[in-house]
Amino acid sequence: MHAEVTWLEKLRFRGVADSGVPVTIDAAGTLGERPQGPGPMEMVLLALGGCTAIDVVLILEKMRVPLKGLRVVLDGDRAEDHPKVFSRVRLVYELAGDDLPEDKVRRALELTQEKYCSVLHMVNKTAEVSWEYRFR
Amino acid sequence: MHAEVTWLEKLRFRGVADSGVPVTIDAAGTLGERPQGPGPMEMVLLALGGCTAIDVVLILEKMRVPLKGLRVVLDGDRAEDHPKVFSRVRLVYELAGDDLPEDKVRRALELTQEKYCSVLHMVNKTAEVSWEYRFR
Repeated sequence: MHAEVTWLEKLRFRGVADSGVPVTIDAAGTLGERPQGPGPMEMVLLALGGCTAIDVVLILEKMRVPLKGLRVVLDGDRAEDHPKVFSRVRLVYELAGDDLPEDKVRRALELTQEKYCSVLHMVNKTAEVSWEYRFR
Repeated sequence: MHAEVTWLEKLRFRGVADSGVPVTIDAAGTLGERPQGPGPMEMVLLALGGCTAIDVVLILEKMRVPLKGLRVVLDGDRAEDHPKVFSRVRLVYELAGDDLPEDKVRRALELTQEKYCSVLHMVNKTAEVSWEYRFR
């Protein structure tokens, strides 16, 4: 996997990886300015949410569970000292659908948490990760 | 830090964190379709590039080194088995400027690598990280 990150101005960067879709990475918020994109640690948290959400969609599809909606809400705490890695991350999976079978949902969430989610298994090397779910 | 990732369709998600700027996370490439945003592991690699680039800009500014251009080129290898974390990441810092003092540049790069870059110090828990630099 290849990626390039190019400085634009101030603390704003343009990044592009294999998908070819450019993203703006911006730490303008730390300068008290309005950012034009997420900062790097925001991107890690978003990547974690996307990674585990993709797993859940794919696993429930394979289980023939008709999922209608999914949102992953994440809260991360960072270490106080440099390097300010995530020290704790909490995930809440909010699932929507008609009569979703709780046993299969729980199994899908266990599979992404324990086996499949690549980003999670990098983040959990520094962060204590906890998760729960609710039906909407 | 707070983030929410919401399923849109297929393997496409909308993510928004504290900065308030929405991003599209899209694994459509794995379905053979054209993605509308980077996939989660791409986002981690981009976050790593942005994180360390921000450090370099800030540190060289503090050292009063007049940096004119910066690009971080990243290549990541993933583990073959689930969870497919990064197993190796190579970074190349490309710096532009007039008569950049190599000792200060090297010190700045050592500082981000060894002390400051939050994303790096999560990624390097699973990946062997190597880096080099060149002047453009």
